[in-house]
Amino acid sequence: MIEQREHFQKELTKLNDLILRMGGMVEKAIFNSVEALKKSDAGLARNVVALDDKVDMLELEVDDLCLELLATQQPMAVDLRFITTGLRVCSDLERIGDLAVDIAQRAIELSNQPLLKPLVDIPKMAELAEKMVHKALDSFVKRDAAMARELWKDEEKADNYRDLVYDELVEIMSRDAGATPRALPLIIISRHLERIADHATNIAEDVVYMAEGTVVKHGPKS
Amino acid sequence: MIEQREHFQKELTKLNDLILRMGGMVEKAIFNSVEALKKSDAGLARNVVALDDKVDMLELEVDDLCLELLATQQPMAVDLRFITTGLRVCSDLERIGDLAVDIAQRAIELSNQPLLKPLVDIPKMAELAEKMVHKALDSFVKRDAAMARELWKDEEKADNYRDLVYDELVEIMSRDAGATPRALPLIIISRHLERIADHATNIAEDVVYMAEGTVVKHGPKS
Repeated sequence: MIEQREHFQKELTKLNDLILRMGGMVEKAIFNSVEALKKSDAGLARNVVALDDKVDMLELEVDDLCLELLATQQPMAVDLRFITTGLRVCSDLERIGDLAVDIAQRAIELSNQPLLKPLVDIPKMAELAEKMVHKALDSFVKRDAAMARELWKDEEKADNYRDLVYDELVEIMSRDAGATPRALPLIIISRHLERIADHATNIAEDVVYMAEGTVVKHGPKS
Repeated sequence: MIEQREHFQKELTKLNDLILRMGGMVEKAIFNSVEALKKSDAGLARNVVALDDKVDMLELEVDDLCLELLATQQPMAVDLRFITTGLRVCSDLERIGDLAVDIAQRAIELSNQPLLKPLVDIPKMAELAEKMVHKALDSFVKRDAAMARELWKDEEKADNYRDLVYDELVEIMSRDAGATPRALPLIIISRHLERIADHATNIAEDVVYMAEGTVVKHGPKS
């Protein structure tokens, strides 16, 4: 019995490790995709696209491990929730990876022409989104609801950045129609970063539910 | 033992029913959000926003049922996969509901000014997305991988529509900068519809995995 429990704990540690590894990869993908955009560096952007396969493979590995744990260990209460939350977290991470790939693809598109304007808010937004993903995963492996709740404020900041970028670029396009083809991808990129922040918040909401049994998904957040 | 099995089957049927009910609600939300846009009907749009609470509540109900089934029934093999897939499906449906709400909010924004142009592709895209959600859920409850695979072609169509809408509106904005504030929300709406199609495809991919144990998520689709 003790041996079985030890084996189970080992598997849970493995689940933690896989998810943190996936997290590290998508954080790097967020950073590099925006770095590639800033520096018009198509090579770096292509690197982000190429590395996404590894994120996808890790998702499948996490999936399999979770299903195996559910099938063979019949986990109860808090462990059961930890594993089903793991299933969702890896799905959020995979989508974050996809969004970074899409940002990288737009960076490639834009790399053969000068940037419309020096980027200020988008890199700040990327930094925020990356930090949010990191904190969300930290709260997951530590099963720390208080840390997860810290993300609500960050999400508001991400929304504000998205609106700032939108308003600024609409203003530019309204003055100069010729700017549209270079401005629109930037709007889309800022929306992707905001969606990354959303995915991080989804993870944090799942962590609060996992740790406290409190649903914060659809209610007012405080 | 037979009694227990019967109870389990009943609970699985309940899971089917809840997910189909959720599906029906988000399909209606997709339709009505674009209908509200087409007819500049802010009242209908507000209705979509108001009804989303019910979708959220259903998601929590599905979640709880899945966790309860995992904890108390210790399901094996195909049933285990059905339940963990159910957890993901309801999360996709909830996000589809959120996207319909965002479309409705843009319809409200745009309702006090004339439409930029008569809408052609966006309503077709909405119809396609709605059909995809319906088919994905049908394949889930029937555990029918062949039906799920039919969605790959629909997803390409959705991508094409998104590109059509984008190119047309960029063209309009490049000619007339004043059109930007009315054109941009339409671009965003077409992207939302494409994301709805993506969520439907995610569900279909999970169904193929559930039914066949074949991973189609990240590989070439045929």
